[in-house]
Amino acid sequence: MPNSFGKLFQITTWGESHGPAIGVVVDGCPPRLPLSAEDIQGELDRRRPGQSDIVTPRKEADRVEILSGVFEGRTTGTPISMLVRNADQRPGAYDEMRDKFRPSHADFTYQTKFGVRDHRGGGRSSARETVGRVAAGAIAKKILALGRATGAAPGGLEIRAFLTEVHDLAVPAGALSAFPTLAEVEATAVRCPHLATAEKMIERIKAVRSAGDSVGGVIECRVRGVPAGLGEPVFDRLEADLAKAMLSLPATKGFELGSGFAGARMRGSEHNDVFESRDGRVRTATNRSGGTQGGISNGEEIVFRVAFKPTATILQRQPTVDVGGAATELIGRGRHDPCVVPRAVPIVEAMAALVLLDHWLRHAAQNQTFAF
Amino acid sequence: MPNSFGKLFQITTWGESHGPAIGVVVDGCPPRLPLSAEDIQGELDRRRPGQSDIVTPRKEADRVEILSGVFEGRTTGTPISMLVRNADQRPGAYDEMRDKFRPSHADFTYQTKFGVRDHRGGGRSSARETVGRVAAGAIAKKILALGRATGAAPGGLEIRAFLTEVHDLAVPAGALSAFPTLAEVEATAVRCPHLATAEKMIERIKAVRSAGDSVGGVIECRVRGVPAGLGEPVFDRLEADLAKAMLSLPATKGFELGSGFAGARMRGSEHNDVFESRDGRVRTATNRSGGTQGGISNGEEIVFRVAFKPTATILQRQPTVDVGGAATELIGRGRHDPCVVPRAVPIVEAMAALVLLDHWLRHAAQNQTFAF
Amino acid sequence: MPNSFGKLFQITTWGESHGPAIGVVVDGCPPRLPLSAEDIQGELDRRRPGQSDIVTPRKEADRVEILSGVFEGRTTGTPISMLVRNADQRPGAYDEMRDKFRPSHADFTYQTKFGVRDHRGGGRSSARETVGRVAAGAIAKKILALGRATGAAPGGLEIRAFLTEVHDLAVPAGALSAFPTLAEVEATAVRCPHLATAEKMIERIKAVRSAGDSVGGVIECRVRGVPAGLGEPVFDRLEADLAKAMLSLPATKGFELGSGFAGARMRGSEHNDVFESRDGRVRTATNRSGGTQGGISNGEEIVFRVAFKPTATILQRQPTVDVGGAATELIGRGRHDPCVVPRAVPIVEAMAALVLLDHWLRHAAQNQTFAF
Amino acid sequence: MPNSFGKLFQITTWGESHGPAIGVVVDGCPPRLPLSAEDIQGELDRRRPGQSDIVTPRKEADRVEILSGVFEGRTTGTPISMLVRNADQRPGAYDEMRDKFRPSHADFTYQTKFGVRDHRGGGRSSARETVGRVAAGAIAKKILALGRATGAAPGGLEIRAFLTEVHDLAVPAGALSAFPTLAEVEATAVRCPHLATAEKMIERIKAVRSAGDSVGGVIECRVRGVPAGLGEPVFDRLEADLAKAMLSLPATKGFELGSGFAGARMRGSEHNDVFESRDGRVRTATNRSGGTQGGISNGEEIVFRVAFKPTATILQRQPTVDVGGAATELIGRGRHDPCVVPRAVPIVEAMAALVLLDHWLRHAAQNQTFAF
Repeated sequence: MPNSFGKLFQITTWGESHGPAIGVVVDGCPPRLPLSAEDIQGELDRRRPGQSDIVTPRKEADRVEILSGVFEGRTTGTPISMLVRNADQRPGAYDEMRDKFRPSHADFTYQTKFGVRDHRGGGRSSARETVGRVAAGAIAKKILALGRATGAAPGGLEIRAFLTEVHDLAVPAGALSAFPTLAEVEATAVRCPHLATAEKMIERIKAVRSAGDSVGGVIECRVRGVPAGLGEPVFDRLEADLAKAMLSLPATKGFELGSGFAGARMRGSEHNDVFESRDGRVRTATNRSGGTQGGISNGEEIVFRVAFKPTATILQRQPTVDVGGAATELIGRGRHDPCVVPRAVPIVEAMAALVLLDHWLRHAAQNQTFAF
Repeated sequence: MPNSFGKLFQITTWGESHGPAIGVVVDGCPPRLPLSAEDIQGELDRRRPGQSDIVTPRKEADRVEILSGVFEGRTTGTPISMLVRNADQRPGAYDEMRDKFRPSHADFTYQTKFGVRDHRGGGRSSARETVGRVAAGAIAKKILALGRATGAAPGGLEIRAFLTEVHDLAVPAGALSAFPTLAEVEATAVRCPHLATAEKMIERIKAVRSAGDSVGGVIECRVRGVPAGLGEPVFDRLEADLAKAMLSLPATKGFELGSGFAGARMRGSEHNDVFESRDGRVRTATNRSGGTQGGISNGEEIVFRVAFKPTATILQRQPTVDVGGAATELIGRGRHDPCVVPRAVPIVEAMAALVLLDHWLRHAAQNQTFAF
Repeated sequence: MPNSFGKLFQITTWGESHGPAIGVVVDGCPPRLPLSAEDIQGELDRRRPGQSDIVTPRKEADRVEILSGVFEGRTTGTPISMLVRNADQRPGAYDEMRDKFRPSHADFTYQTKFGVRDHRGGGRSSARETVGRVAAGAIAKKILALGRATGAAPGGLEIRAFLTEVHDLAVPAGALSAFPTLAEVEATAVRCPHLATAEKMIERIKAVRSAGDSVGGVIECRVRGVPAGLGEPVFDRLEADLAKAMLSLPATKGFELGSGFAGARMRGSEHNDVFESRDGRVRTATNRSGGTQGGISNGEEIVFRVAFKPTATILQRQPTVDVGGAATELIGRGRHDPCVVPRAVPIVEAMAALVLLDHWLRHAAQNQTFAF
Repeated sequence: MPNSFGKLFQITTWGESHGPAIGVVVDGCPPRLPLSAEDIQGELDRRRPGQSDIVTPRKEADRVEILSGVFEGRTTGTPISMLVRNADQRPGAYDEMRDKFRPSHADFTYQTKFGVRDHRGGGRSSARETVGRVAAGAIAKKILALGRATGAAPGGLEIRAFLTEVHDLAVPAGALSAFPTLAEVEATAVRCPHLATAEKMIERIKAVRSAGDSVGGVIECRVRGVPAGLGEPVFDRLEADLAKAMLSLPATKGFELGSGFAGARMRGSEHNDVFESRDGRVRTATNRSGGTQGGISNGEEIVFRVAFKPTATILQRQPTVDVGGAATELIGRGRHDPCVVPRAVPIVEAMAALVLLDHWLRHAAQNQTFAF
């Protein structure tokens, strides 16, 4: 269904930007996992507005309540319902949007599809919907990080997303360590672990905000500790589900795995990842594949990148039409991120965690339940 | 399930490269559609090996048999089972692959995941699996092209994919008409509608083949005639399902919609598609969005691009390991495409058709069944 | 997923008996439907404890809050999240259940499956879970009752469930009018529209309660106004989905459609429903089929019956074992229904509505979206 | 989708009674299972027409071909496509059905739903569709019987269905051993393990056939060796999915688990299954629950019954209407079973196996993949 994601670890999100609350139901969670609201809150705080001076100054405490599925500090295997109350609503700020379609927003398409829309702050199309994804993803991340797969060697998964580009600023090729630490990522408000670039990005975002404009950027995500074997032949390839997960995020325009679009410009002899025995197991000498072959993880790092367009809301006068089709114009108001990409980092990680955990459960069901 | 795709128009493919046959079951097809094997065969012929001198010389007639779901020339609403016999198998050619993992192929990951694999020609991981997709997609394309949506204005959808890049050769910016004709695409074996570039691409592919090497490329796909309203909020955004569809294809490394990765390098004021009244309806002045906003089609052309890596099989000596983990080497043999991208054009179109038809049925169910 | 039901009109319920709240998310609801909490509350009041002197005296106001998906009194096509706070919890009353398995309850199976359970009032296995089903079903019932199918003749569906048996008391054969009115059903606390039998049932329930015992019963459900064509060939037959819906309810032990088990004791010549032209359309002279043929509605009344076992909680001393497997005993305490069947009437109606609406949407998608 | 069943072990059936072939695709099968056509053929032979003198004399060899998913005698984890060619078709025998609706058949409902139908032998609505279910079920049965669950004690599941009623003849209460052997079931053509009753049933079926009439009956199915823990809370209760599976079979009118409808006539103090320690584990002293509590298996035998109506095709003159709605009449011709119930025994077993295996995989995924 449109508001559910995952086959075995399945989440269903609900809620509008300016309704009373926003939330998520997580079904299929393994039982006995130690879980508290604090486990969730940490990730929500990373996506929250108002956390730094380069994001929207909206004040949303975003305190999560767990309403079901956890008993005496452990998950019970039944649905986990989580809810975050919406606060700091200024619905009056959105009156103009009742009748006018904001350029490159979903106002027109929702109105056309459903014949009705909650215009306040974008309603269901608001990026506020990702609160539920991050809350659910926090559970998936915790499960994956604990390294408690039955019968497997200990050691958990680590998922790390970070910015590599903002507008035309990019981390220089080769400048990053293979797997940035969380501290390196969180060191700056822009979540780019290359400090020199991060500083320029922050400056650029501030400059753009002063001009009432906005910019886009690119997030790279790396995952290490993934066992070989996750993902499915044919339609549910690991990268296909990652691509869907990422393109389901607001403002995304592209996804690439491993060598990506640059790989299309290479020869096979340059691109192939040859196998070798290393560390007592089969490894590839390079990782242009980005961690999967034939749709299935090969035990190398999963590496993908996601392109985000510039924020559609800008504080400039733009022509548009109203719901009757008449020409009019609109000036963006309200408190918006001049660049959504830094706050999208925990969201990308959450979606990656959801995909990987779901595929892990699917893999175990088919391949580890019966022994022939 | 891993081998099924779509929610209402659902296909399930089956078959290995060197098994007796390969096929697909299509469930949920609208009834009374005129349909014959010829409708399917035309599309299969476009993806077939041996169709030109730049693709693999394997001989596969790929004649489709319809085994169910069609009665007296019309679909009955019950599952349509289609089968293509595998021919021209030279299983002996694959003996070496029984024990060695081909670099950047799925041999290692299938073996690790399942503990067993049909090594002949890649088995299930072979691009031969896409026969079923193209057969099913031919039905979807026909339905979409007919323009027979209940209560809608007449006029069907047109889906056109074509090559814009091979290796480092690209169609010059702005050189293409907005919507190339089928004849323009099919004019050359490389399926690039820009003739000067097409000629260079063909030369490049031949040169690479002579060197026992391979190259990748990029396909662009455009769809016109899409009504506004297809796609869903949140997870099943139209572009999310298109991204999944494309990344589920063998050898794909990236997907981008509209402005794509380049859009991440723009300002909001440059990127926004402002609305205007044109042709008696709401249109956007530009189409950097690529045909969707908030995950829902806005009535403009859908435009996306897919990156394909170079063919992994090359006729060169490569180091690798065997199933026991011991170092060895391998020389590609067999008959392979030095560049799979031209033959992928009908496959991309098929997947696009499957996504669009499925979303159309979903949209109608929710929004057009009851009138409030 | 285990806690979701429906393919297009999909509901996901969550919550434990003694957690902070219980609720449901409805996804896929048609947009623009006028909807308020009052539409939901009426049905919740019919299932609520404490509504008469033959049901549990627990006090649960069961006030529903709509948290999303409704804007200015109309559904928006996005998920409708509904929540009911749990009140009148006396968790101390359940301390004994922490360590002992109640006979014919789900304590043992939940403990074995998940290795953990919320023992308070049965946790997730409590019939309190059906609050979410009734809330969601109220929306489905409203849509079906309005008779606003696009392009169809006006006239809505009417769904009527009622008791025909309690313990060994049954409505005499032929004593009921074909389609009891809601007033007839609601006339007595036991919801049996045959007054003489209803009075005996009430007496029996009171007698059984005095003895600290419980009884089961049978509900019949009839639906009129169903168009021919709902349901699917093969697995998703209308009666298959109704059977699943009903057997998913707590305490149910059987389902039969039309002639049911008695039909197995008839000859074909007695059982067949011959066709005739009546009222300007094709009708059957009899309705032993119960409203479907080949899994698809034929336009006649849908008639099915559901068997409910006696309430497992009885106020008598029963032997059992504790979580360590040691023999012990248990005396039921708490406030329980000596017969759950009267309160199950609105729940059966809700599940029937969910199945019928979902199949209507599926039917329209495949058969009414394109015209060939 | 309408023609698919199961969440993880998923089957998709296709084919019409008088099309070229009928088949099934099995997706999600565990890899490395030894499997050959003979494993499938044995079960198909049990449902085949012409196997005794009380079933239809149609000659269908029903030889299965495995087209994919098996390599060198073992499953590969990819889809298993199986096909059975239709033979002994006498399409001319069905000309009359092109225009007339057979009473209590699916002719009218298919025509109304789809606006088109393959009238030959009932097309998709024919019980011939169950060939695919039996073929898929044979794989599920083999997996369950082998007792190779990872980490579990050895010992497989045994599934045994048999007739307890034909028309008004029933096995006397208490006359059957708890778990009839396969030899006892297969000893007579009617598949009732109580010989004295079986003989009367056979006589009755022959008498009814001579009269050009038909009869129904009841099948009981027992499953032993089921581990505690299979099934899900709420919607996907084990009995809910069994009920759906059984009501999805042609000619079924009812389902009951354990005490069933008779349980509705009992008191709680009579009905409850008290727990005790026996054989070193928690057992119930009685089994009125029928093997599940709260929708989850409790380790006792699963016991359910399915009611089948009399065959709709009778060799007598019956009034009906034609496709234009005009009154006409029809005399059944062709070769039909006067009682379908004996041949339904392997089909009931197949569906039970599919449900149980699917739930086993689901259970393992959620509860055995990670250890907390």
